[in-house]
Amino acid sequence: MNAENSETLPDLTDAGKFRHWVPVSLRFSDQDSLGHINNVAYAAYVEQSRVALIDKLLRNRGTDIDYILANVHIDYRSEMHFPGSVDVGGRLLKIGSKSITTGYGLFKDGVNVATATSVNVFFDPATRKTLAIPDGLRRVLEEELAQG
Amino acid sequence: MNAENSETLPDLTDAGKFRHWVPVSLRFSDQDSLGHINNVAYAAYVEQSRVALIDKLLRNRGTDIDYILANVHIDYRSEMHFPGSVDVGGRLLKIGSKSITTGYGLFKDGVNVATATSVNVFFDPATRKTLAIPDGLRRVLEEELAQG
Amino acid sequence: MNAENSETLPDLTDAGKFRHWVPVSLRFSDQDSLGHINNVAYAAYVEQSRVALIDKLLRNRGTDIDYILANVHIDYRSEMHFPGSVDVGGRLLKIGSKSITTGYGLFKDGVNVATATSVNVFFDPATRKTLAIPDGLRRVLEEELAQG
Amino acid sequence: MNAENSETLPDLTDAGKFRHWVPVSLRFSDQDSLGHINNVAYAAYVEQSRVALIDKLLRNRGTDIDYILANVHIDYRSEMHFPGSVDVGGRLLKIGSKSITTGYGLFKDGVNVATATSVNVFFDPATRKTLAIPDGLRRVLEEELAQG
Repeated sequence: MNAENSETLPDLTDAGKFRHWVPVSLRFSDQDSLGHINNVAYAAYVEQSRVALIDKLLRNRGTDIDYILANVHIDYRSEMHFPGSVDVGGRLLKIGSKSITTGYGLFKDGVNVATATSVNVFFDPATRKTLAIPDGLRRVLEEELAQG
Repeated sequence: MNAENSETLPDLTDAGKFRHWVPVSLRFSDQDSLGHINNVAYAAYVEQSRVALIDKLLRNRGTDIDYILANVHIDYRSEMHFPGSVDVGGRLLKIGSKSITTGYGLFKDGVNVATATSVNVFFDPATRKTLAIPDGLRRVLEEELAQG
Repeated sequence: MNAENSETLPDLTDAGKFRHWVPVSLRFSDQDSLGHINNVAYAAYVEQSRVALIDKLLRNRGTDIDYILANVHIDYRSEMHFPGSVDVGGRLLKIGSKSITTGYGLFKDGVNVATATSVNVFFDPATRKTLAIPDGLRRVLEEELAQG
Repeated sequence: MNAENSETLPDLTDAGKFRHWVPVSLRFSDQDSLGHINNVAYAAYVEQSRVALIDKLLRNRGTDIDYILANVHIDYRSEMHFPGSVDVGGRLLKIGSKSITTGYGLFKDGVNVATATSVNVFFDPATRKTLAIPDGLRRVLEEELAQG
């Protein structure tokens, strides 16, 4: 992958770009005083998908590597209303030297309501320092990325 | 209704006692530092079922009557763990002069993890005063109660 | 304790009945679509006070006794509105053989908006079975209760 | 403002860069199973500051202009632990043609634990279309930005 390619990230508003999906029930208490789903709840929906995706990818990572959440970015694209559920697609976007970037698309009744990206950084639980992704794990991640 | 009848309420730990069901996704953020689902989240699960049940029962109540939540009581019976979803059964328990009592059973993978009861009081949106349940609505509620 | 005593519980709508207080910031996201603070958030406010109260009372309980939440009952007495904070008073109400009952009063700008009670049961972390309150801990609890 | 200036945004990890502050109580239920404050709760802390800041800046905006949340970006810089409170500094970062960018610094006991930025877009409540910032409001925003 060269620098140019790294710019052509998949369109996260397109449901066809995701193979991993998690449905999340909207809750009455997710609404705010404006009558729609509050922005904070979207962060919980994204987390739901991120936890499922990363658990799947890192299942066999061993106990000598852990990861932390470095950042979350959410683009709010459309209001969402209770009741119902939101389908959150999740996918790997980029593999760095010590981190991965994941991407998310949130859809209610087939309509994209938000997209998000997130970076997780790997570290050594013993030293609490950041860590280059080990070769075995990198291969797993590259296979995942190749599947699109 | 006499004192004896008021004692013979249905067993809310028995899934067979419910006809109305709402599934709610457990969220990673529902957990607390003890590694199980935090008690506050159960209140959101109960609300999810209560909103669906009361909306169904009061669908045709007209605009001259509204209702407020007077109390919620939750009995925690078993720890519950992420991930998965909780099935919340809801049912009418009692019809008062100005209020209804509803009951809930929360089940994870078929196991009862909590039960709850809740009282909603009717009031006149114009005067903001409590209100006797109108005859038409009372008949709807009594039919529901008779179905068990 | 006899039946008469068990009836003379303190009035939880009276702020003068509490010596332990915890302020909790109301959050914009605590509101619901009706424009007031959602009932689920009250459960978090009560928990905030319960955790502080029980931590204080059980500070020196040792590692051979733990406790779980058995139930929570919340009476909603008045609507509450963002912004601001809610002051949650907490106190011991009853000492059972294996459990304690605690009581809470929630006040916004000096006005009582809700009251709550909660039962916590003691158990042995090794056997995971309920446990009679040990004598040393019982004395601490009785002193607390005597202070009113 | 030219492209170079637009790069020299204030350091949001520096508490000295904020004049507007909102304290938010950490809640027991904000924690997750890893024993620290869950990332979703940070979004609520940021919202608390954003709502206070924008309410202050747009107090006199009139009824012919409203605004929506376009995005939120949170950088997690340090774990945060219950109990206590988080002080959230908020400030205006940029004024666009139809939007503003605000910035946030989250501090626990004086230590920066996270920073965030957010974009709000203005629109006409009648037509529901985005709207250039009116001159009067722009002057208010420019004065705020000039104060740093």
